[in-house]
Amino acid sequence: MANIREESLQKHYEWNGKIEVKSRVSVETRADLSLAYTPGVAEPCLAIQKDVNKSYELTRRNNLVAVITDGTAVLGLGDIGPEAGMPVMEGKCILFKEFADVDAFPLCIKSKDVDEIVRTVYLLSGSFGGINLEDIAAPRCFEIERRLIEACDIPIFHDDQHGTAIVVAAALINALKVVGKKIGDIRVAMSGAGAAGLSIAKHIIRLGVDPAKMIICNSRGTVYDGAPNVDPVKNPDLAAMAKITNVDKVAGGIADALKGADVFIGVSAPGTVTKEMISTMAKDAIVFPMANPTPEIMPDEALAGGARIVGTGRSDFPNQINNLLAFPGIFRGALDCRASRINEEMKVATSIALASLIPESELSETNVIPSALNKDVAKVVSAAVIKAAKETGVARI
Amino acid sequence: MANIREESLQKHYEWNGKIEVKSRVSVETRADLSLAYTPGVAEPCLAIQKDVNKSYELTRRNNLVAVITDGTAVLGLGDIGPEAGMPVMEGKCILFKEFADVDAFPLCIKSKDVDEIVRTVYLLSGSFGGINLEDIAAPRCFEIERRLIEACDIPIFHDDQHGTAIVVAAALINALKVVGKKIGDIRVAMSGAGAAGLSIAKHIIRLGVDPAKMIICNSRGTVYDGAPNVDPVKNPDLAAMAKITNVDKVAGGIADALKGADVFIGVSAPGTVTKEMISTMAKDAIVFPMANPTPEIMPDEALAGGARIVGTGRSDFPNQINNLLAFPGIFRGALDCRASRINEEMKVATSIALASLIPESELSETNVIPSALNKDVAKVVSAAVIKAAKETGVARI
Repeated sequence: MANIREESLQKHYEWNGKIEVKSRVSVETRADLSLAYTPGVAEPCLAIQKDVNKSYELTRRNNLVAVITDGTAVLGLGDIGPEAGMPVMEGKCILFKEFADVDAFPLCIKSKDVDEIVRTVYLLSGSFGGINLEDIAAPRCFEIERRLIEACDIPIFHDDQHGTAIVVAAALINALKVVGKKIGDIRVAMSGAGAAGLSIAKHIIRLGVDPAKMIICNSRGTVYDGAPNVDPVKNPDLAAMAKITNVDKVAGGIADALKGADVFIGVSAPGTVTKEMISTMAKDAIVFPMANPTPEIMPDEALAGGARIVGTGRSDFPNQINNLLAFPGIFRGALDCRASRINEEMKVATSIALASLIPESELSETNVIPSALNKDVAKVVSAAVIKAAKETGVARI
Repeated sequence: MANIREESLQKHYEWNGKIEVKSRVSVETRADLSLAYTPGVAEPCLAIQKDVNKSYELTRRNNLVAVITDGTAVLGLGDIGPEAGMPVMEGKCILFKEFADVDAFPLCIKSKDVDEIVRTVYLLSGSFGGINLEDIAAPRCFEIERRLIEACDIPIFHDDQHGTAIVVAAALINALKVVGKKIGDIRVAMSGAGAAGLSIAKHIIRLGVDPAKMIICNSRGTVYDGAPNVDPVKNPDLAAMAKITNVDKVAGGIADALKGADVFIGVSAPGTVTKEMISTMAKDAIVFPMANPTPEIMPDEALAGGARIVGTGRSDFPNQINNLLAFPGIFRGALDCRASRINEEMKVATSIALASLIPESELSETNVIPSALNKDVAKVVSAAVIKAAKETGVARI
């Protein structure tokens, strides 16, 4: 790991920035200048003034997404500030380009104030076809996303919440097929109630998990309605989830939540879960410890504890649950049908499309999710996203 | 003209956006992903967190300029709104790239409020190496630029003010050589007291023009201290200029200002000046009517009125005064020496460098300024800018 990080630093010095803005038009002659700039350019300007939808045809808005952060929750590094978050944002942008030919541009906002972040992104929303929010700390990220969705007429998507949720749900769909359990029957224990955790909970409930059979833990223990670690004022999203999950009010920590559970989902911290805890789970346990880069429990330990299927965020073990499988294709689809938003139906369609990429005959304990490096995935995802957008009336072309 | 605009509209539909964001790094393997993104990217992030200056080496900030507008003064079209201004901003961005290999990215802000525009640009300033303000209406543009220069530690440059000023001053330096007059002796009449007009006035005063011998007119007549068309509250910049120019308080309009003048500079409206007015100017008159696309007086009319040297913004007449000669090289230089600002000395150096590009032996009535399409100009300008930045202590490398 130290070597990869050192090598990455060296490469970043060599790269001198991972993105570049290119011209799609050559300017060599007076005629070129007259067409691409003055005086000719007045005409496309006036066409957009008459009909703002023309901005999607006459400027790059049709293919352009902003990747925006405040730098408060960058990787596992915490609040490192906007400038220091930029290498991650540039990295995200090149993944958009390489995996779905989406032009993505990174912007790091120097503010931690919710009102100010919302206003800034709104003021810029006319320049883009979509906004990918990135690495903004919970619970602030929930309010920022919600208010931006209300204010803007372009898709707003906080990938840290929804990207992981969509991909882990796809892995869960396939894993349940392998072990022969029904989604409505399973008991789920979850460690982590931040941006990703709450979004995963909402998303798998939408896919059929019974919330009453789900126990979420945050760093201070199990969550339930009225629990001391749930503050309805500071974190209304967590409080709302606490109202419908863990109806038996199981107290304690993740060890208690895991007893008899069919599925573990971890988006918390390394070493949260032990082999012994896994051994208390139900038969054919599915274990997705996704803390990055070090999972809640290492795959070999989980298997030794009796887990049947293990998936992590890591590329060096089977079943890598990587949001790279989702966001490029989701935005490709949203841009191509000029969606006004990315709604729940589009997210559910993405999970189902991702799961369907592995034929049932090829499903196994070590093959429940496609490879993150498969560049055909985005095409399948975008087709599913467009279909769902059209069916739900948010597609504009 | 109608044909060029129609053809431009057609081309804009074909181009589907004039800019594109590219990846400088290919992502094909797990190793690629580990270096450009997680987990390797944590290391450059931490390096920037420790020393924010590293953002210039480890991200694209070293070559990245934002082209920002509120859409209130786009071309001669007025306040057409942010989305409709985008074709011009994209055009500007491709000129940055084609003429100086600067990566420029267009942002149109949905606000006309000075405080809000200043705050928005400031909040984004950590993501860029420089900011080019564009097509923001006067007098608001003055305050926006001034406050951003105070707030930000990167160069802020309102091209509509300074670009034209820098280039017309270069043309003036050479034209005065051709007619054999000294800059300290000339009488200047100017039509237009907007963003460009006031900046031209300040800039040529810095180059040696005696403000007492200069008369500026706005749309309501000549400007002087206490004149009825000068509102010190609404437009303090104009009021400050009125205090030092037209000390004889010549009343009336541009016809009165032109009597006996050696130089006319127009940044106002088509047809403001007639052949008869030109005939009242001093011998060997220099006439720069730069209203675009139709000048204050057409070149043939000005020559018929007795002008010796005429320059306009148009490419179809000699002496095209085009800010394309200035902004790419200025930002190239500012980025290369990591200037904290673009100061007056750097602007003056640009005018002198531009003028020097035409050897004295080649100077003539129809050759006082280099061709706007000459891609070597930016190199000469950037060298002059870097030298001036270093001499004045604003270069950071």
